[in-house]
This record gives sequence, structure tokens and C-alpha cells, in this order.
Amino acid sequence: MPSLRVAIVGATGYSGEELVRLLVRHPKVEITALVSRQHAGKPLGEVVPHVPSGIGERLLERLLPGELADRAEAVFLALPPGSSAAFAGELYRRGCVVFDLGPDFRLRNAKLYKEFYGWDHPAEDLLADALYALPEWYRGKIPSARLFALPGCYPTGILLSLLPLLERNLIARGSVVVFALSGVTGAGRKPEPRLLFAELADNAYAYGLPRHRHLAEIEQELDSWSPGGVGPLCFIPHLIPVRRGILLTITFRLARASVTDQELWDAYQVRYHGEPFLRVLPPGSGRAPNIRDVAGSNLIELLAGSDPLRGTGWVLAALDNLGKGAAGQAVQAMNLRFGWEEPLGLDPYPGGPI
Amino acid sequence: MPSLRVAIVGATGYSGEELVRLLVRHPKVEITALVSRQHAGKPLGEVVPHVPSGIGERLLERLLPGELADRAEAVFLALPPGSSAAFAGELYRRGCVVFDLGPDFRLRNAKLYKEFYGWDHPAEDLLADALYALPEWYRGKIPSARLFALPGCYPTGILLSLLPLLERNLIARGSVVVFALSGVTGAGRKPEPRLLFAELADNAYAYGLPRHRHLAEIEQELDSWSPGGVGPLCFIPHLIPVRRGILLTITFRLARASVTDQELWDAYQVRYHGEPFLRVLPPGSGRAPNIRDVAGSNLIELLAGSDPLRGTGWVLAALDNLGKGAAGQAVQAMNLRFGWEEPLGLDPYPGGPI
Amino acid sequence: MPSLRVAIVGATGYSGEELVRLLVRHPKVEITALVSRQHAGKPLGEVVPHVPSGIGERLLERLLPGELADRAEAVFLALPPGSSAAFAGELYRRGCVVFDLGPDFRLRNAKLYKEFYGWDHPAEDLLADALYALPEWYRGKIPSARLFALPGCYPTGILLSLLPLLERNLIARGSVVVFALSGVTGAGRKPEPRLLFAELADNAYAYGLPRHRHLAEIEQELDSWSPGGVGPLCFIPHLIPVRRGILLTITFRLARASVTDQELWDAYQVRYHGEPFLRVLPPGSGRAPNIRDVAGSNLIELLAGSDPLRGTGWVLAALDNLGKGAAGQAVQAMNLRFGWEEPLGLDPYPGGPI
Amino acid sequence: MPSLRVAIVGATGYSGEELVRLLVRHPKVEITALVSRQHAGKPLGEVVPHVPSGIGERLLERLLPGELADRAEAVFLALPPGSSAAFAGELYRRGCVVFDLGPDFRLRNAKLYKEFYGWDHPAEDLLADALYALPEWYRGKIPSARLFALPGCYPTGILLSLLPLLERNLIARGSVVVFALSGVTGAGRKPEPRLLFAELADNAYAYGLPRHRHLAEIEQELDSWSPGGVGPLCFIPHLIPVRRGILLTITFRLARASVTDQELWDAYQVRYHGEPFLRVLPPGSGRAPNIRDVAGSNLIELLAGSDPLRGTGWVLAALDNLGKGAAGQAVQAMNLRFGWEEPLGLDPYPGGPI
Repeated sequence: MPSLRVAIVGATGYSGEELVRLLVRHPKVEITALVSRQHAGKPLGEVVPHVPSGIGERLLERLLPGELADRAEAVFLALPPGSSAAFAGELYRRGCVVFDLGPDFRLRNAKLYKEFYGWDHPAEDLLADALYALPEWYRGKIPSARLFALPGCYPTGILLSLLPLLERNLIARGSVVVFALSGVTGAGRKPEPRLLFAELADNAYAYGLPRHRHLAEIEQELDSWSPGGVGPLCFIPHLIPVRRGILLTITFRLARASVTDQELWDAYQVRYHGEPFLRVLPPGSGRAPNIRDVAGSNLIELLAGSDPLRGTGWVLAALDNLGKGAAGQAVQAMNLRFGWEEPLGLDPYPGGPI
Repeated sequence: MPSLRVAIVGATGYSGEELVRLLVRHPKVEITALVSRQHAGKPLGEVVPHVPSGIGERLLERLLPGELADRAEAVFLALPPGSSAAFAGELYRRGCVVFDLGPDFRLRNAKLYKEFYGWDHPAEDLLADALYALPEWYRGKIPSARLFALPGCYPTGILLSLLPLLERNLIARGSVVVFALSGVTGAGRKPEPRLLFAELADNAYAYGLPRHRHLAEIEQELDSWSPGGVGPLCFIPHLIPVRRGILLTITFRLARASVTDQELWDAYQVRYHGEPFLRVLPPGSGRAPNIRDVAGSNLIELLAGSDPLRGTGWVLAALDNLGKGAAGQAVQAMNLRFGWEEPLGLDPYPGGPI
Repeated sequence: MPSLRVAIVGATGYSGEELVRLLVRHPKVEITALVSRQHAGKPLGEVVPHVPSGIGERLLERLLPGELADRAEAVFLALPPGSSAAFAGELYRRGCVVFDLGPDFRLRNAKLYKEFYGWDHPAEDLLADALYALPEWYRGKIPSARLFALPGCYPTGILLSLLPLLERNLIARGSVVVFALSGVTGAGRKPEPRLLFAELADNAYAYGLPRHRHLAEIEQELDSWSPGGVGPLCFIPHLIPVRRGILLTITFRLARASVTDQELWDAYQVRYHGEPFLRVLPPGSGRAPNIRDVAGSNLIELLAGSDPLRGTGWVLAALDNLGKGAAGQAVQAMNLRFGWEEPLGLDPYPGGPI
Repeated sequence: MPSLRVAIVGATGYSGEELVRLLVRHPKVEITALVSRQHAGKPLGEVVPHVPSGIGERLLERLLPGELADRAEAVFLALPPGSSAAFAGELYRRGCVVFDLGPDFRLRNAKLYKEFYGWDHPAEDLLADALYALPEWYRGKIPSARLFALPGCYPTGILLSLLPLLERNLIARGSVVVFALSGVTGAGRKPEPRLLFAELADNAYAYGLPRHRHLAEIEQELDSWSPGGVGPLCFIPHLIPVRRGILLTITFRLARASVTDQELWDAYQVRYHGEPFLRVLPPGSGRAPNIRDVAGSNLIELLAGSDPLRGTGWVLAALDNLGKGAAGQAVQAMNLRFGWEEPLGLDPYPGGPI
């Protein structure tokens, strides 16, 4: 069987670079185009020196959506907010399978999009066809979809952490607080002063207040999956001097003070049994999720606990913003879409001591 | 007027080292003893090479409390939990002024101490004489006290952040969540595997769950200063790959949804006007507290905000765990105790680009 | 064909951990024992949480060499200096193929061993059978050997850099200076104060002066491969705040002032044409070897240049101390020994943005 | 006596920021102008948030040299190469004392300037009046000069390391190799991709080959102070993931194989006895210079050693690129120029655990 022809648009950003890394060694696909407006004409290896021989010599191209549709059956878009529609519309109409890693097709409500992103939605007519491609919760719908909106890195971790607990009514409405720590690749490869080594090393700070853009999709999905809605949410992300990875600490009031660690753990076990990329740590193991145990992989690690004395519960989670939070999850969705084994091409091994 | 004779017990830990740095250049004191059980007999500069000539040649000594009382009028104890009492009792009875940077005299309730620390309080009779030495809230009582329990690094930041808002009833009871990030010097100079560069770089994780020891003093003080009590609290500290500094993100439900950023800011302005070490950032300035802007100094930076749509409020705060969170605050308390200018010997300048 | 049964002794050190990572996914081998004296009885995942399900549940064992010989056809020893002989002798006599990552069998001269390591060689009789297993220079001898002394991490990079230039007589005798930077995993997983994050971050220093132990094997090999000998060498390693990777800057006086960049490049091209793990950068490409482009892989990157005006030449090289400098090279040697494709199981892709 | 009126041109770069930090607390000066072309009109604290109240509110201005001469008696220029002349000429003619931290007046030979910097010297007529302001070697000429070219950060460390040994003829001609590691503030506050945290963390590389600009002034000074000249030099700087500080490792062939550690140490003792900012470590102390022991101060630490068996010698040195390598040395020169105590305003204490 011939390989699936795939293209990557935005191949030199951090997510694009990770897509290249994963797709180069994926046994079922062949990369037929690397698109970069900024670096068109240069070999990939000149812009991203990490790549090995073979792919490093390939030229970056500037292609129109129509040209791209001739070259690839599946296209990955790793572009800034607002930029995907220009490619997605034409590709979709031409029959391509589109995996959009950006935010443009995540919100079902175009008004909400405008409120959070500040401009009119660039392709409102496509929203009804887009699938919010969180595999663990939308797996059944993936085979029949063709326009995939990959969840944001924070939403991926937050939804996987909270949905099983909401499903079981373990969380008091209106009590969820989400603190997030992100490595700096989450901010993209932009040469801004605040992202310089000399500024970020030995430092940390909150950003995105009062309402980070990801809040919109987080609330959309939590409300759609929990019967009574989750109620007002507080979400505060932080930047820390780490290159890659996200750590989430989510707290809430227990629906009943008697909720035990075991009950929280059971909720995950039931829902996530057999999931290839979820690792739920058992209570009392002495281990907590940490960035290094998942960085470089498609894994997410979870640990839940409670303090019945104070009526509070929490979930700790770690995932890779470029892996499960972006490129890895896109490959996972592709595998499901084309009927391949879900973990194909996704190394289950975190970076070890890298 | 002759200099005050001061001694430092535990001079080679991170807090002790910072005490040496501050006291060496303090114009009103003379260091008359450096006590270290582990390194007695060596010159300080052999154990802590950062120190300059002059102090580096001074020998570390092993001294009994009685010998110490002969040598110093004021003694700083920078020792592990449970170890201060052995010095504090004798020194106090002999008339010394004692500044204890450890936790042994912070809780007024010996039962609570046992619950959180796991052993009987080693000097229960002294608890009534100890003052919880948070200068901004106990300034009036400092001149007449002689046994000072310096607040922990996390409690210092949390109390300074929350007390003015509680005083004004801006926070809904039972809704406070405290998320803390700490640099690694907060864990002390212990050669544990988890504190190795190879393990902590590129990493971050929560620790101290379900109930970090500092929770006890935080709840004690919040309840004692707020009329109705603050209600159950959730406090989750994290370790990040930073040497020095604490970042706090505190969230709560607003007592009324109409509470504005301005109202939060006013609460601080009224309470902290003229305070030398508090820097409250104005809402809308575009700046957020961050570790680098306070590391190396005795400053704490605060910024409060609200999302009336969701009814949530937050305070962001940054301080130095070794400065305002330990050695700096101890020097501040000493200045007040002896009637000197409050900032004497405390550089108002953070470390600059260091 | 059944898988080769392999065992790892010292599975919880950094090199051992990397061996596990590589051998778990190697298609021709099966790991039949994980030996650790210190952690025997615990599952591997408890000591090294990075490992994925499957291998993480495997128990660490304490095994005698004889027991080990029953369980494995090939054994990897990742042990401290002086500790390998106790295993290597018995395993070798029992017919096992032994890959020793430690220094005990690298020096052909037992006197030199004593001079550099400080104790008598523990198994002098085996020295004659041991092969210094630098694949690019001893490839032809690998298939018939059974006791492999893998080169040290620094020597690997230095020899690969210098041997082609010495072969062509491009270097003036007695003029070589080697300056090396190492990530901290090179020092092992020892909880020493100097290796703490709080001590090493924002820091760097030279160590190992006047004569680092690796100097012995470097001089042995340089002298054995270059007709007139290389003459006295200066080698100064440094520790930098990086987890993994080595950067080498080697300078020398040109044998003739007229030696051009092209001539240096040619020397490598001729010698290393077709080598799977050597990437020689062309002069004038604007790229220089750097740690991130090789970390996590078995690659070594080289760039040579000259300043004819001053008569000086240099080689810059980057490799991974745990990859090409330890575990990766051991797997490369194993592949050659058993007649498999040389890169089998060795990902040619560096860690990407990891 | 009234304070000296001083101005800083380029106040928002890293060196400018450090000048502000030092001059704000200098007891003999008053800052009368902060000049920044890029940020004119903003308060300093908006651009550089580290600064304390008082100086943070001061406005950055765009001033002509003439206006500046009216406002200040001494002017510090912290500008990019080629930019100082526009200010220095007019200021000098108007009688100001000029401290130029840039390279424009360091080379006495305008042709050499063009060769290394690539453009014609912008004020050749001033070169004869400029003094290369390395205090330890030009102290006697400082009081009568008015145009000071502060040495570069690398040259400062290299000259202080080598000059005493050359004076005593301990170094074989043509054998000196200088390896340098620099923290990233040495590259300035430019938002270049290679200086991003995500690119530099976990990384290191050489740069500036084949001839870094500082080589010109290094050779100029070494040749001028050593009778026979030092001969061709090899100088290779590297960037490491550290914010601030320089580590130098200098190797050479001993003039006689019999040169001992003691002889090297004596050379420094004789020459540097009583120097306030030189700390020469005794051989055999077990300590080596490292960045953290000098960062944030005006100190330079040195350690020399030899391997008589191989005929090689070395000097290890650490200094702060922004302190002794830039702003601190400029303040030191100012103190000497105006007849004040040499260490005035210069904290002898490195940053401690900052």
C-alpha cells in the first residue's frame, strides 16, 4: 500500500519542527511538501539545524492551497491564530484531510471567537464541519471527519484532567481553579525580549490575565460534557525557565467532603482504562507528575488527591506542549482517522535524561 | 556608640549565608560568632566561597548556648525545624535578643505544632513570649519583644497579599487557593538526588501535598486577622528550576462580583502606604510581579486583579525566599527592635541583571 | 531468529538508563536482566521514573556474574572505575560478549592504569583480549572480539576529531590543546553539593587539573595512530549548566601555515565518507557544532578551520556524553559485533527541540 | 563638596543598566541625565523594571552632545561599536570626562580598527588622547586623562591573567591559547533567535571565528607590555547558558619545563599585591575560579598551574562581563580619575546565592 502523502504548513515553528520529527519516521506516511512563507527557498536544515540528513536537504516552499491539494492527501497546519482559514477552506473543498494545530476551528461559536481573538472569524461556514479532535473524548467521530481542530496545549491537559471527575459529579460547581506552568516553546519562536535567555533564566511570571484565549475552548468543552456546566472558572498560566512541557495544578471544592483519593483514581481508571497515552499515577505512590517524565513524548501523567478536612481536591498533570499538546496529538488523530494503530510513530518513551 | 554584637547559628546554610552577607555590611552591628556544628574549625570562606576577604577568614565555631550568650547581644538562628529550641531557651533566659528563622516558635498552639511537624514542641513554655515577626502587621509589638519567630517564606508572601483584602471583606470565605513556585534554595543545601541540576533543570513539580507545613501558620494568621476567619484554604507549592525567589498566584471568589481592580488596589494603598519594602503595581501598567525584579532584595511586589464576569479575583506576588522570606526580614525586624531606620543595611536594589 | 539476550549491569546510573532506553526498542535484542546492587528488589520505574510501562515494572536484581552468564549472551557494564573486572572476568570466561562502558579495559598498559587511577589493575590478564571499541577506527577488529572497552566520552570526541588530521600530518607536534565542556550527567547521578541545581546554575568551572584520567587513553590512542606521536597534550575539561552533551574546542599549530579550511575538510571527507554517525560541517556554512544539535542521538558533528595568518588550526566538535560518548556507541559496537546494520536501534534524529 | 554630575548614554542596555545600579548608590556622584535614543520619553523603570523607586521614575531623554555637556561633568557611553565617536568628540572638546565602554577608542591604530570593525575610524584625531583604561596597568596615567577607553570584557580578563607572567618571561612565545566562556548578557539585549531561552538553554557553542574583534586589542596590549611580543595567539570565545559572567582558560607552553605552580603564583603576588579587585587563589587550595564567585562584583579571580611533565601551563580566571568587564571597571576608573578611594561604590561582595 502506498504511503499517505502529507504536507506541513508552518514547518519551521516549534510545532512544525516537531511534526517533521514525528512524520519523518512514521511508517505510513511520506512528507511531500514543507511550506514556509518566511523561509521559502532555503533547505529545512538551514533554518532548523536539528534535523538529520535526508530531510534536512529538502527545500521549504511557498505554495498556494490549490498546489498543496495536488501534492498531499493530508495537510498539517501549524500557523498563528487567524492564518489557518486561508489554507483550510480550499484544502477542505478539494478533499484533503486537514489537521489544524491552530485555534481557528476550535470554537463552535463564531461570536466567542471574535470576543477572544479580536477579529471576525475568517471562515465561519466551515465551523459546522470541524471536529474538536481530542482523541480520548471524540474518538468515535474521528473516522468520519475531515477538518480537525486540534485542542490547545493547555485545554488538552485540563480537559483530560477534569472531564472524568465532572462526569461523576465529584466537583462542586463554580470552584475550579487552574494554574498552569508552561515551557517557553509554548510562546513560539518569536525573538521577543521577554523570551531571551538573559530575561527568562532565573525568572517566572503569570501572563494572559484576565482571560487567556484558551479559556474559551476550555469552558466550551467542560460545559458541553458536564450536565450542569462547570460554572465560572479561573485559569492562570505562567511562564517558567523550561524549554518544553506543561505542568497543571487544578484545584476544586469536592462535591462531597467525603470524596477519597481512591474515588478520584477510580473515576480515571474507569474512563481511561486502555488509553495508550494516559498514565494515571496511583495515590500514595510517592510520585508526582513532572515535566521531565513526559517531555518529548505523547504521554500525559495525572495524579488526583483530596484533603477531606478542608473539602478540597486537586489534579496534577504533566504533558508536553509540543507533543500531546500539539504535534503528537495531531499524529494520534491522523492514526485514528486512517484506521492505523493509535500509537503508530509515537515513541512511548519520554526523553529519558535528555 | 559601640556596635551591636551579633552571632549567626547555622551560618553555612543558604539563609545563614544570606544573613552573613547582610550583616557584614550593616553599619550598626559587628559579627562576633559564626556557629556551625558540621563545619566547625574551618574558615567560612572554605565552605562558602562567595564571601569576600575579611569575613572569609573567620573560623566557624561549635559553641554552647551559654558561650554564645557571652559573645553576642543578638543571635540569629538559621536551623532546621526542631533545632532552635536548644539554643533559643538558654539565650532568651540569658537576656539575648533571639531572631529565629526556623518554624519552632511561629505557632502559638503546641498541639498544632505536633500535628504539622510530627513531634512534641521542644519548648512549649517559650511560646507565650514569642512574637510572630511580620513587621508590616506586628510592627508595634517588635520593640518590646525579645524572641522573634520570623515567618516562613511562603507565609510572608501570602499574608502580605491577603490580609489587606480580608480586612476589607473583599474575599468570599472558603474560596482562597494559593499556588506557589519556589526557587531551589528554599529546599536548603541538601545533596538530595531530586535537587541535582541534572534532575531539576527542564523540570517542575508540585510537592508537600496534602498539607505543607507552612499551612499551619498561614491559617493561624489569616484567621487571627480576619473577623470571620478565611475558611478552608488550599495551598500547593511547586519547585521550579530557579535558584532563588518565590512567585505566588492567589485566587479567590470576590465577596461581591462588583469588586474592581481599583478597589483591590485601594485596599493595599491604604494599608501599605509608606511601607519601605512593598511595591504594589498599579492595575493596567502592563507589568506583572516576577522573580527577577525582587531576587536579591527585601522587596515584595504585588498586583491584584479581578474578572467580574466570573466573580474571581487574584493576587500575584513575588519575593525572595532568602531575602524578605528569611534573612532580609530578620534584619528588618532587628532594625525595628533596636530603633534603627527600618531599611538599614537592606539594599533596596534587586540584583539587577545578576 | 530468536532475539539476543542482553543484560545491563548498573542500570540506574545515567549511562545505564540510556542503555535501557536504547535496548528496549532495539529490534534484535531482549533485555533479560537489569542489575543494580543499590536498588535490587525495586522495579526500575521506581528508581528511574522516565521509563515507559512494560520496562518500568521489571525488577532490579542483584546477580552474581555466574548467574548473569546463564541469563544473557551479551552484557553491558555501566559501573564506576575499578568495578567492572569483578563481572568482566567471569562473564568473559563463560563465553559472554562483554561491553564495558567503564575505563578498566581501555588502557593496554597496567602501569599507566595505576598511575591514572591510583590502584593496581584488577584484571591485568584480560587486557590483551580487550578491544578499544571506537568503531570508526577499530571496525575491522570488532567481529572477532568479545571484550569491548568502550572509549570515554571525551576521548571519543577528541580521537574522532584529531586522528584524520594526524594521519595527514596537518598538526605540528606538541601543539594540541583540548578544551572541553561537559553537561552534568557526565559526572554521574551522585548527590554531591557541587552538582546541585542551586550551585551549578549560572555557573561554570574547570576541573580535573592537572591530569584528568581520560588523558591516558587519549594519549595512548593518538600516539598509536600517528607515526611520530602527537607530543605533549594539554586537556582541560569544564562543567557547564547543561544536562547532557559535550562541546570540544581543539586547537593546534598548523604543520604548515598554508593549510586551508578545505584541506582540513578533505581530511575528514576521505576518512569518514559514508560513516553513519559523523557529520562534518562544510567550511563557510555559517553553522558551528553545538550541543543541542546532537543531544539525544549517536551523532558527532565536526567543523575544522584555520587562521593561516597566525598559523593556528582548530576543530570544534559536539557529541552526547550519554549517546556517542557512552550507551549509543556501545549499541553501535554491538550491532557491528553481531553483524547487524550499524545504526540499528539508534535514532539518527537528535532530540529536536527537546 | 557638591556631587559630581554624571550622565549615562545608552542607559537601557545591559552595561547601561549596570552603570545605573552602581552610580545610583555611589556616594560622590549624582546622575543628571539618562540618555536613550530608542526609549526617550519613557521612565527608566518602564524599560528596566529591576530599578528601585527614585531612579525608576526618571525619564529617559534624547540629548545632543552639547546639551549633555551642559548637564554633566562626566559622561559614560555604553553604545554599540561605531556609535561613541558622535558623542565623545563634542563632549571631550567641551571639557567633559568621557568613559567609553565601547571599542571605538581602544585601538591606537586606526587601520587595525578598520580591519577588525569593517569601517573607517569615526574620530581618528582623538585616538592620541585616549587612554586604554585598565586600572591595574595604567593606574598612573588615569588622573591626567580625560578620554577613557574601557577595555573589552574578554581583554580585561586575558590581560590581567597574562601580563604578570609575560613580564617574568614564563611563557614560550607563540604558544598562548585562550578559551573563553561568556554569559549571554555579553551579547547585549538584542532579540535574536539564537539568544532565546528555547535556543540557548541546554546548549553551548563557539562563535566569532576565525578572529573575534577583541583579538585586536588583546594583541595590541600583550605586545606593548611584553618585551619580545607574545607571538601569534589563538582566541576562541563560546556562549553558554548563563546570564552573566566570563570564565577564561588560558594555556601556554612554559618557557622552561621547570616552572612551578609557586613561581606562577609569585608572579601574581609581586605584581598584584594590594590590588583591591584581584583575588589570586593559592595553588593546592582545591578551589578553582568559577563564575558564581565573582558575578555581580568587580572582582577577578585567578588560578595558575603547570604540568612540568608535559611542559604546559595554564591560567584559569573568572570575572563578571558587566562588572569588572564593563560598568564596574568604568566606576573604578572614575574613582581613580577623581582621586577617590578606588573601591568607592563597588560592593566587594559577589552576589552571594543570587
